Amino acid sequence: METKFVNTKTDTREKILNTAAFLFQKKGYHATGLNEIIKKSAAPKGCLYYYFPNGKEELAAAAIRFVGRDIQVEVEEILAKHSDPVKAIQGVIRQIEKFVLGKAQENRFSVSLLALETAGMSEILREACNQVFDLWTDMYYRKLISGGFSEKRAREVSVIIQSMVEGAITMSVTRNDASLLLIVAEQIPILLK
Amino acid sequence: METKFVNTKTDTREKILNTAAFLFQKKGYHATGLNEIIKKSAAPKGCLYYYFPNGKEELAAAAIRFVGRDIQVEVEEILAKHSDPVKAIQGVIRQIEKFVLGKAQENRFSVSLLALETAGMSEILREACNQVFDLWTDMYYRKLISGGFSEKRAREVSVIIQSMVEGAITMSVTRNDASLLLIVAEQIPILLK
Repeated sequence: METKFVNTKTDTREKILNTAAFLFQKKGYHATGLNEIIKKSAAPKGCLYYYFPNGKEELAAAAIRFVGRDIQVEVEEILAKHSDPVKAIQGVIRQIEKFVLGKAQENRFSVSLLALETAGMSEILREACNQVFDLWTDMYYRKLISGGFSEKRAREVSVIIQSMVEGAITMSVTRNDASLLLIVAEQIPILLK
Repeated sequence: METKFVNTKTDTREKILNTAAFLFQKKGYHATGLNEIIKKSAAPKGCLYYYFPNGKEELAAAAIRFVGRDIQVEVEEILAKHSDPVKAIQGVIRQIEKFVLGKAQENRFSVSLLALETAGMSEILREACNQVFDLWTDMYYRKLISGGFSEKRAREVSVIIQSMVEGAITMSVTRNDASLLLIVAEQIPILLK
């Protein structure tokens, strides 16, 4: 019988990170306990401290970076579907609108809660969130450059888009209505004219 | 000797609300304890439960509304200085840039942290944050209407500005650098063309 190779070590670590990221993003740093992460990830007890011996802060920093890369892969895929930066960026925002309030997805596209909770409390977590914001902003930047925008304008607009999306996710979660993201998508041609 | 009339009752309640708002906005709902609010506000013990008999959730809802009105008064004043909506709204954003990272002010202009922390947990707090976002959005809306914008465009742009500002505050706190708000201010003429 053929067996599929499974890297158990990576799998358990990733399962923990995935669960940690979901809970931290949805409930926040303070409201999420390590026991809840262990329980929900169904990881063998002790594994969490094996992979993250320094505890919650270390796990949260790893979870933030995990989210950053995970969303990056997804966004890059959508951006690659259109050579026109306007259509490509609108595609990303419309995708976020579709999923942001789904039960399994809520806040997955945003690190705002973690960023605001931890910025004044942990330099490690502030820096991790900042790097994720930069990572996401940089995707818009590169798409704009490839579409012929000047470096200066690409830099300005990419950070504006990132701010607008992050703010609109916050407001969508608060309104329990994501249609605001469609209005954001409609402003992209105006900003990029 | 003439004595200045002081409404002690209102003063104590307001002192509690002011302190609660500052701590909730800066540290978040979960990380702020009622004892810390009592200590920092220097309110007589027992006063907090006298004014807010239902405890933390009731106090937080009142603090959110307090912040909403407080910032509304400040923003209305700045908006009134210019009849041109572009200049008026740029004035507001530049004022936020000046103060958002000051030690006494951090996050005062934002309810994002509270909104994201509580949206999935308390309908009362989600609704209070939502009302504040509406209140602030409405100021931009009315300024745009008075400047001759169509109802449709004023509705779209006002909520975009509110999202952009809220997202830019989040990113400014995370970067520990508020200059992004100046880039936001520069996009207003483009959005309102």
